[in-house]
Amino acid sequence: MGGLFGVASESDCVTDLFFGTDYHSHLGTRRGGMAVMDGGRIRRYIHDITNAQFRSKFEEDIKRLRGHCGIGCISDYEDQPLIIGSHLGVYAIVTVGVVKNAERLISQAFHKKAHLSEMSGGEINPTELVANLINQEATFADGIERALEAIEGSCSLLLLTDHGIYAGRDRLGRTPVVIGRKNGSRAVTFETCAFPNLGYEIERYLGPGEVVLVTENGVERKKAPGNRLQICGFLWVYYGYPASSYEGINVEATRYRCGAALARRDTVKVDFVAGIPDSGVAHAIGYANTAGVPYSRPYVKYTPTWPRSFMPPDQQVRDLVARMKLIPVPDLISGKRVLFAEDSIVRGTQLQDTIRRLYECGALEVHMRPACPPLVFGCKFLNFSRSRSVLDLAGRKAIKELEGRSDAHVEQYADANTDKYRAMVENIRARLQLTTLQYQRLDDLVTAIGLPKDRLCTYCWDSAE
Amino acid sequence: MGGLFGVASESDCVTDLFFGTDYHSHLGTRRGGMAVMDGGRIRRYIHDITNAQFRSKFEEDIKRLRGHCGIGCISDYEDQPLIIGSHLGVYAIVTVGVVKNAERLISQAFHKKAHLSEMSGGEINPTELVANLINQEATFADGIERALEAIEGSCSLLLLTDHGIYAGRDRLGRTPVVIGRKNGSRAVTFETCAFPNLGYEIERYLGPGEVVLVTENGVERKKAPGNRLQICGFLWVYYGYPASSYEGINVEATRYRCGAALARRDTVKVDFVAGIPDSGVAHAIGYANTAGVPYSRPYVKYTPTWPRSFMPPDQQVRDLVARMKLIPVPDLISGKRVLFAEDSIVRGTQLQDTIRRLYECGALEVHMRPACPPLVFGCKFLNFSRSRSVLDLAGRKAIKELEGRSDAHVEQYADANTDKYRAMVENIRARLQLTTLQYQRLDDLVTAIGLPKDRLCTYCWDSAE
Amino acid sequence: MGGLFGVASESDCVTDLFFGTDYHSHLGTRRGGMAVMDGGRIRRYIHDITNAQFRSKFEEDIKRLRGHCGIGCISDYEDQPLIIGSHLGVYAIVTVGVVKNAERLISQAFHKKAHLSEMSGGEINPTELVANLINQEATFADGIERALEAIEGSCSLLLLTDHGIYAGRDRLGRTPVVIGRKNGSRAVTFETCAFPNLGYEIERYLGPGEVVLVTENGVERKKAPGNRLQICGFLWVYYGYPASSYEGINVEATRYRCGAALARRDTVKVDFVAGIPDSGVAHAIGYANTAGVPYSRPYVKYTPTWPRSFMPPDQQVRDLVARMKLIPVPDLISGKRVLFAEDSIVRGTQLQDTIRRLYECGALEVHMRPACPPLVFGCKFLNFSRSRSVLDLAGRKAIKELEGRSDAHVEQYADANTDKYRAMVENIRARLQLTTLQYQRLDDLVTAIGLPKDRLCTYCWDSAE
Amino acid sequence: MGGLFGVASESDCVTDLFFGTDYHSHLGTRRGGMAVMDGGRIRRYIHDITNAQFRSKFEEDIKRLRGHCGIGCISDYEDQPLIIGSHLGVYAIVTVGVVKNAERLISQAFHKKAHLSEMSGGEINPTELVANLINQEATFADGIERALEAIEGSCSLLLLTDHGIYAGRDRLGRTPVVIGRKNGSRAVTFETCAFPNLGYEIERYLGPGEVVLVTENGVERKKAPGNRLQICGFLWVYYGYPASSYEGINVEATRYRCGAALARRDTVKVDFVAGIPDSGVAHAIGYANTAGVPYSRPYVKYTPTWPRSFMPPDQQVRDLVARMKLIPVPDLISGKRVLFAEDSIVRGTQLQDTIRRLYECGALEVHMRPACPPLVFGCKFLNFSRSRSVLDLAGRKAIKELEGRSDAHVEQYADANTDKYRAMVENIRARLQLTTLQYQRLDDLVTAIGLPKDRLCTYCWDSAE
Repeated sequence: MGGLFGVASESDCVTDLFFGTDYHSHLGTRRGGMAVMDGGRIRRYIHDITNAQFRSKFEEDIKRLRGHCGIGCISDYEDQPLIIGSHLGVYAIVTVGVVKNAERLISQAFHKKAHLSEMSGGEINPTELVANLINQEATFADGIERALEAIEGSCSLLLLTDHGIYAGRDRLGRTPVVIGRKNGSRAVTFETCAFPNLGYEIERYLGPGEVVLVTENGVERKKAPGNRLQICGFLWVYYGYPASSYEGINVEATRYRCGAALARRDTVKVDFVAGIPDSGVAHAIGYANTAGVPYSRPYVKYTPTWPRSFMPPDQQVRDLVARMKLIPVPDLISGKRVLFAEDSIVRGTQLQDTIRRLYECGALEVHMRPACPPLVFGCKFLNFSRSRSVLDLAGRKAIKELEGRSDAHVEQYADANTDKYRAMVENIRARLQLTTLQYQRLDDLVTAIGLPKDRLCTYCWDSAE
Repeated sequence: MGGLFGVASESDCVTDLFFGTDYHSHLGTRRGGMAVMDGGRIRRYIHDITNAQFRSKFEEDIKRLRGHCGIGCISDYEDQPLIIGSHLGVYAIVTVGVVKNAERLISQAFHKKAHLSEMSGGEINPTELVANLINQEATFADGIERALEAIEGSCSLLLLTDHGIYAGRDRLGRTPVVIGRKNGSRAVTFETCAFPNLGYEIERYLGPGEVVLVTENGVERKKAPGNRLQICGFLWVYYGYPASSYEGINVEATRYRCGAALARRDTVKVDFVAGIPDSGVAHAIGYANTAGVPYSRPYVKYTPTWPRSFMPPDQQVRDLVARMKLIPVPDLISGKRVLFAEDSIVRGTQLQDTIRRLYECGALEVHMRPACPPLVFGCKFLNFSRSRSVLDLAGRKAIKELEGRSDAHVEQYADANTDKYRAMVENIRARLQLTTLQYQRLDDLVTAIGLPKDRLCTYCWDSAE
Repeated sequence: MGGLFGVASESDCVTDLFFGTDYHSHLGTRRGGMAVMDGGRIRRYIHDITNAQFRSKFEEDIKRLRGHCGIGCISDYEDQPLIIGSHLGVYAIVTVGVVKNAERLISQAFHKKAHLSEMSGGEINPTELVANLINQEATFADGIERALEAIEGSCSLLLLTDHGIYAGRDRLGRTPVVIGRKNGSRAVTFETCAFPNLGYEIERYLGPGEVVLVTENGVERKKAPGNRLQICGFLWVYYGYPASSYEGINVEATRYRCGAALARRDTVKVDFVAGIPDSGVAHAIGYANTAGVPYSRPYVKYTPTWPRSFMPPDQQVRDLVARMKLIPVPDLISGKRVLFAEDSIVRGTQLQDTIRRLYECGALEVHMRPACPPLVFGCKFLNFSRSRSVLDLAGRKAIKELEGRSDAHVEQYADANTDKYRAMVENIRARLQLTTLQYQRLDDLVTAIGLPKDRLCTYCWDSAE
Repeated sequence: MGGLFGVASESDCVTDLFFGTDYHSHLGTRRGGMAVMDGGRIRRYIHDITNAQFRSKFEEDIKRLRGHCGIGCISDYEDQPLIIGSHLGVYAIVTVGVVKNAERLISQAFHKKAHLSEMSGGEINPTELVANLINQEATFADGIERALEAIEGSCSLLLLTDHGIYAGRDRLGRTPVVIGRKNGSRAVTFETCAFPNLGYEIERYLGPGEVVLVTENGVERKKAPGNRLQICGFLWVYYGYPASSYEGINVEATRYRCGAALARRDTVKVDFVAGIPDSGVAHAIGYANTAGVPYSRPYVKYTPTWPRSFMPPDQQVRDLVARMKLIPVPDLISGKRVLFAEDSIVRGTQLQDTIRRLYECGALEVHMRPACPPLVFGCKFLNFSRSRSVLDLAGRKAIKELEGRSDAHVEQYADANTDKYRAMVENIRARLQLTTLQYQRLDDLVTAIGLPKDRLCTYCWDSAE
């Protein structure tokens, strides 16, 4: 996924930029970067954060940085921020999103004799490609508009320039961009959880396709927002940080409502409710509070050294990390009927191991309640599914077992009112050896989030575009 | 505090040693180390873990380590393991504890013309001092016994030798040492939460003063345990990891019982119960489940980059970390009556800030319920209070305000049935601007833990020795 | 200055590339880099070599590199090699030279909506600018030709592409590019001293403006050389490594001839001849052998930790290094008449200190014999003088003292047959407190090198273009 | 070998200590260390210098060091300085030498229940063993005297204590210890080449076994020197830095006299004389100046990245380094009769390669003149031969070929007046494919050094003790 943060301040911006960027660390595992405008020159640092945290990697750098205006990012793939010399001047740029039509855009650029130099392992840096699009116009605002229009997939971005920070939200608002204010400073963020500890209050949420210029004095609109919004619903279910809000709707509270909705549809008798840390916990709390069943923690996460929510790319390491960071508490599990709320079931591989270990610790029954419907369509708008094939999804594997091929009648399987849906769920339940399995209904999820359905992207559940 | 872990195995021990030691990371912030016996030679690595995690620091080292027998530690102060050449042979040693009579023992050693070379910043390495005591006898077993007897304070230890790992538990069992077994391996640990994910089952808890020799084939008793046990009660309240057990009693379950005990004594009406992560959470869950009040998370910990439970030694950095790693969720707080369960109130400084921010976020009432009685006596048996003065304790500051001096009638203030106790609690409540404040009673805490009071050290609450 | 090296081989090229590039370390102090074509993808490493040597920085990298074709460089300013995506394909590029008309070329590129992303500290990376020029044409050969034509200053370059290494020598051959061969491999180098230890023999010297494609099988001419040659004469006097040859003329032997020429014009009586390490040594040997005077080493360089010939950019550090790396041997100096041969006198600042210390060590007389005429014009074709102002040159300072301004009658001062020249030399001698000072005559220098004068660039001495 | 340096100053000592220690870098390849007394506490840094230079490793540390008194070392084996707590107080210690009777001294120490904790790879740190000996006495002076007496092999040392630096020279003065002075400071050094650039003048050379206390105010003798001196003759021939003096005799000048002595015994006709850098150069200059034959540099050392004189321990790497760091200059060699002066022939392996390459470059004749007699006995007093077997010496290999065993009639072979000696030299000459080979005579070498033979250790040449 990736995240971005920017500050324009009357005083030095570095501390706010450092912590503000750091608060996006849950959104990426590969690269972190910061760029600061210092007396007309841009100073930048980029580090590999695969094996160490953003903060430890940049601790030394921030002593050498100073300036009133800066941008930072956490990136899941490429080096960022880039510093770009162009007819618009020298600027730094960070982006979040995925450029699905990169190949065509690259060939158009090369046709015009342009080059792209931020290559890594033979791959183009998509942020440089975005910069190339911006540079085709006479002003930053027109250039950003052109880039947002030209890109298929999604793209939100920040540009650090001589006159302030240009912030642009994806054309359909698939990812959030939010402005914060405090005395003498403006900040712009993906995650609003970056604001409270730095003293910012939310000033406003950019609309889809909106472009603004942020300075220490305020926010100037450069391009009005469009009408159509397609913000990713999965942000509330899984990706977003609990303390953040998108479109004014808090993540943690939404998850409580998800759990409550599950509880209201449920009749099972259990000894306690639990969530697999970290993503299932809030859903479980919502369930327990509504159902009047004790909440407990039969799995404890070893946070001191396994801090990340995201997983490393290598599957074997991912499995080892998954196993090592969760510690079962046999004393709490033995002889008990357990209900687990989860954010979602993706491939189900690690879940299988987790469930098996519960039985080994003496659990009598294990019930699972995912907070969203089965995932049956691969995302094509954001980059978080790049490393996962749609065919590995637990739902698709069930369809393959039932139909002989994984792409048969998929839309019927995605409809909770069909027999095919029920057969798919039963197939997943049996494979996971669960006592019972009940998914959230899509309408309940949409209600829990609280936006009209047509302003949410629910593509991965029902293929609606 | 510090932690220790050892493995003796028929096959290579390094992976188990690495992860087993890593699972003690919450017990220390300064040094990590591992030593492995490889073909009669000991290979050792020690790293500074102040700014990075144990795992990232040792990832490269473990590729170069191999052997069947090894020990590791997390240390809050000194370099460990040490490798010692002596008339007993060459061995490695790790210790947990505090040598209160170090000065006298050092002067005895120097009197015999011995030297101590592991100096750091002018201070003796206490583990080298322990080794010096061990070397005064003709066998490892006699030497360890002599050391455990001679030390005032506490000391549990592991020695990696040619014939296996010697493990010794503190004379009064103030810290735990536990043996685990799986096919072809034995492990020895401080925290039993290191066992489940590595496949070990608890074989037995060493008794106070007990010394054993651990090999891949089994455990040979070298010195029988003593009768008197004084295990630290604060391990269950705060220090221990939730998934661990001491004397067969699980930490997480004990904390639920602490919260339940608080709830049973309580009549206050609130909108929800919460715990300040991480140490207050389990107590809060126990309270909420018993009181039938919703449990909620108005403060979220930013785990991706603030993983540690322990604090850095510099107070200013400590305050910054404390502020940055907890993110308030104003949507959940505004207009609400909040009850917080906490493990304990130490100095109360950070708590004051936390409470103030709740009111700023719109909380109507803030109630606090610590899971243990007021801390009024400084620990003299373990090293975790070394950096804190007893006079800084919230209870002592209250006594000073009430009496003009902080050491007047302390024992009466520690007794929950006195007016002085009630005045002290009211003083603390007022200073923290809490709506209400009710501490756990000591007898309720002892009952929640479940050991006879005379087998627990409760010195910090009632000065009983 | 900077240097470059490339290899195309039937077998793996990495070892040759690593050592071949390393043998250019004396030509740059900032960046080192290597790029290797591995199965159609380019893998690259760049390191800061300001405080450590090329070899120690790349030792780990070479374990991860493999491939048949690669290029490397030592760079005095910018990051290199760059990896460029373009309509010509993906390629890596290194350059040596200076782009004097960068501003105009950049503005032309920006006018076409191109961007430049390899910015550092607000400055364009000139190698990216060269790549931009190359990309304007339909083939690599045409592109390189265009770039060599467009650049004012100088530029030699290597491109690593799918079909081999394109090598282009500067339009007027200001810097050398030489092809070497051994069984199954071709190499291309700036310094031929890189060849003997890697087993290469010189195959041929590229002519001015010549462009070739180098593969493991041979060298294909893509662009014939021009007629006019203007190779830098200072390469033989100072910059080149003793074991290298340019245009077939060895550096060390040329320096002996320089010293010999000085000796033949001289009549002074001294006890011994010496050179200030490292650049003055060969000139001094040539002098001593011809004059029949003992050669001695009254100044010893502390090579174990002061290995570099080049100086750090900060003047204060430069002075410290200069002082610390040369150790006087008072036993050899005391009571003696000393003649020092030097490559040249640039500013004379450090020399002043060196001479003063000789007198402190008891020298009776100190005579100086520079191997080239006074430097009075700043170089505008290569980048080695970027950090030095022409006004700081010892000759110009003398002119300023004599004329009141440093730019009066400069061409007369540059002519050894004028009174003004003699007054300038006397002024420099007096300031340096030398017993006698005699510079090399330009015609003697040209004879010592052995090329016709019109094929050498002698601009810094006589402003001939 | 290793080196040591100390400073006691009225002002801060760190800069002098840093550079003074750095000037011993040619004496060791493994460890560097510094310790400074700062307000009663000792602060110490130790680094691995195998792959980087002392200066680059300690550049950051010196910013954190301050104090008036400090010691440093370059060490070929163990970690140093050690910080030792003892009944004498806390002190730091560095040593140079080799403890041949370590095993017996260790067992005596262990018998007294002492331990040694500075173990590495299973080996005792000999410097800790020396400290253990010192601690057996009631004062530093008596302790140092006891240590110097007890050690077989050799040992010079520095102790950093509360009252100043104790300096002790080896009992028979096998290694030098020299006192320097400047305004407000005293320094103590192994190599006097550390003095001129730091402003020190030689105050006096310690005698054999002498012990002094050095403070900023002066030098207090604690133990008078003994009568017998056995300083290593090989220091002048090979180990010492050219700018250093021992017993008042300069190294570079001695080497000129060595070369001159060789020339005076010689009648061969050659085109030029050369030395293999770095150790052969001064001998060659002495030869050329005396013989009236041109001096030349047909082999150039690539100093920018191969700075060290000493070799890495792995033989394969050693050979690679040897090959890569010397670059032949074919233009100077082809068609010429070459005479090489060398410091000595040890095993001759690399020499063989060097000579072969000369013929490949077209040399007509290659003559070799070593500046000392054949090495036929292994050193047992200093640690520089630890990694070389005496049987690998070129002389011993010749004896083995001639006699069938390498230990037959060795003393006759060591005598230049015997037929056996001539047969051995001829054998070596033939194996190295030299045109002629003539070694220095021992009496000529002793005369060139200038000390009476009985005050020099010549053991490796004639086994005299």
